[in-house]
Amino acid sequence: MSFTFQIESTAGAARAGVFSTPHGPVETPAFMPVGTLATVKALDPDDLVQMGASMILGNAYHLHLRPGDDVVRELGGLHRFMGWDRPILTDSGGFQVFSLAQLRVVNEEGVEFQSHIDGSRRFFTPEIVMQIERNLGADVIMQFDHVIAGQSDEGTARDASERSIRWLGRCLAEVQRLEEGQPLDEETPREEFPADNPRNRQALFPIVQGGIHPRLRREAADAIRSMHDWSGFGIGGLSVGEDKDAMYEMIEVVDDALPKTHPRYLMGVGFPEDLIEGIRRGIDLFDCVAPTRMGRNGAAFTRDGRLNIKRAEFRTDPRPLDSDCDCAACTRFSRAYVRHLFVSDEILGLRLLSLHNVHFLLSLARAAREAIQHGDFDSWAHDWLARHRATSALTV
Amino acid sequence: MSFTFQIESTAGAARAGVFSTPHGPVETPAFMPVGTLATVKALDPDDLVQMGASMILGNAYHLHLRPGDDVVRELGGLHRFMGWDRPILTDSGGFQVFSLAQLRVVNEEGVEFQSHIDGSRRFFTPEIVMQIERNLGADVIMQFDHVIAGQSDEGTARDASERSIRWLGRCLAEVQRLEEGQPLDEETPREEFPADNPRNRQALFPIVQGGIHPRLRREAADAIRSMHDWSGFGIGGLSVGEDKDAMYEMIEVVDDALPKTHPRYLMGVGFPEDLIEGIRRGIDLFDCVAPTRMGRNGAAFTRDGRLNIKRAEFRTDPRPLDSDCDCAACTRFSRAYVRHLFVSDEILGLRLLSLHNVHFLLSLARAAREAIQHGDFDSWAHDWLARHRATSALTV
Repeated sequence: MSFTFQIESTAGAARAGVFSTPHGPVETPAFMPVGTLATVKALDPDDLVQMGASMILGNAYHLHLRPGDDVVRELGGLHRFMGWDRPILTDSGGFQVFSLAQLRVVNEEGVEFQSHIDGSRRFFTPEIVMQIERNLGADVIMQFDHVIAGQSDEGTARDASERSIRWLGRCLAEVQRLEEGQPLDEETPREEFPADNPRNRQALFPIVQGGIHPRLRREAADAIRSMHDWSGFGIGGLSVGEDKDAMYEMIEVVDDALPKTHPRYLMGVGFPEDLIEGIRRGIDLFDCVAPTRMGRNGAAFTRDGRLNIKRAEFRTDPRPLDSDCDCAACTRFSRAYVRHLFVSDEILGLRLLSLHNVHFLLSLARAAREAIQHGDFDSWAHDWLARHRATSALTV
Repeated sequence: MSFTFQIESTAGAARAGVFSTPHGPVETPAFMPVGTLATVKALDPDDLVQMGASMILGNAYHLHLRPGDDVVRELGGLHRFMGWDRPILTDSGGFQVFSLAQLRVVNEEGVEFQSHIDGSRRFFTPEIVMQIERNLGADVIMQFDHVIAGQSDEGTARDASERSIRWLGRCLAEVQRLEEGQPLDEETPREEFPADNPRNRQALFPIVQGGIHPRLRREAADAIRSMHDWSGFGIGGLSVGEDKDAMYEMIEVVDDALPKTHPRYLMGVGFPEDLIEGIRRGIDLFDCVAPTRMGRNGAAFTRDGRLNIKRAEFRTDPRPLDSDCDCAACTRFSRAYVRHLFVSDEILGLRLLSLHNVHFLLSLARAAREAIQHGDFDSWAHDWLARHRATSALTV
């Protein structure tokens, strides 16, 4: 078994652990920077190594369209393609099909949609998505699921959740078929290297859906647990429009319903406050595009809330973005310089703010981990959130 | 005297030397990456250090408009502002006033023009430009000169060259006034720290103009030499539309007319072939925006000519941009990956090609330096140009 999860310390529901993968360990809780198109936007892999990132994300939908998962496979898989020899997780594209693509038609077989790039017609089934994720070759691959709006009613949410669970069964069967080198049909040749194929070292993660309905979340978690001995669990369909309290309640419901022994990945969630609220409710892994997207828009996370670097008040400000930060932007450059880069449309500005924001979340998860290990997580989390809420109210 | 030039070896007119500045040595021949707006576009200062860049450029015209030379001065000068503790040279803005700005009116006093950013009216005189360059605080500051089109007739070229020489006298007088802390007029207070002001450690470089007219070039060089004991000489108004043979002839004329003992900087020139042709004619310093501009457009310098990474033929090409190159792009990434980044508008693509191209020119200058020191510069230059010309004809 290439995947293990060791819990080292706990503090209430919060845990400090190590998730081991074929490409190395992930110390949890961890924030995973998002490299949608095989690059964490505006950053270099070396930047991520220097910041101590361990696992990063790629996206099956985007990489299938560009450059093509067949191209990535031909070039040795996603790790080699993008120059990243640490763990990678690929999202299945479920979220993208439902948020980016046009003219979706969903039926039990799968989803027909139009590419957001060129409008070409595509068809994703659980089987096709598993083939794509196998070509990409990430360590962790997410199931293909049916994603719905955050505030959907219980009927809609039940329908999508139950379909996602049926699709999970098909994903699992397809992964097993691929691992055993079984041909798809009589005309497909059997794959050549079934047993020792490094692509077999992938862990399929299910995704617990169920919207904002506790009963559906519990039913989904139970059904998924009974299906297979999974290496970890995704929690999907949160931070998509529902209010924060509903999100926190759903995390608590799922925390109870999933085995404590396995890593839990809260998908698409990763603002500083959400990280802490998630960790204190038993979440181990997070991802979010916010740090790079906000960075490209000129916003910096700071210990005291967000800062918009384009504002005139920073024109001659000699201080770093965040005086508590030891990232490669804050240790070298002033707010005045970063503002100048933004005002002048210089690429280095996008890079420095993206770097700072990703570093901020990586450091925050590390600080939470240390607090859990040192036995003072509750007071640390309380103090962090109190200061953040007090000062954010002033700066937003 | 903070500025010295030691020649270590020669090969015909070519020289290997060390130009010492208050911020450290520049081993020559050297290519100087261009950081117009206090950043070498798409690169990080750390990238430049890793590539072995020594001296880089900033631009007085651009930095005066954004963020303002007063802002840069307030933040400790250009070195600190942009996080670069090695030598910096600032161009005076003469070229930009004549190529970018609108509605220019030139008279003996100076040039009135409209900012290319916001259309605001500005007035540059030799004195104002020296004040700007002093505020920026680079090691080497270029004189303000009257730049004309490359193929101007002798009358136009003489007029501009002679005006540039008169302006040089005013630049020198202004630099001396500033160094001595003399007030500009009765109402201006005397500057507080005249003698130990670190801004006094700047070398003013004159610029030899004269278009494509050998007589004018010689006259300019003679007039400039007789004016002051300069630390080095700029050669301007080349690579601006004249043919290559005319450029090479002018370099030879100026090589004869300037003292062999001092560094010569061929302004705005820096394609690979031009570097070698310049070095063999006695040039020590080069700069050019081409490596970063071409990089942002998807073109890579290679040992065998230019490569347009966007071409479909590179879709699955596992080779590096240039198999002879040891830059941080070529040692880590395939052409297929860099092409994917470009096709997907990913910022890392701009960075990797810019990095490769700048590294290519820095390495080329270093290789020329080594060949001069090893006594085989002529055959090295011949072989390099022969291969480059043969293969470039196939790939352009």
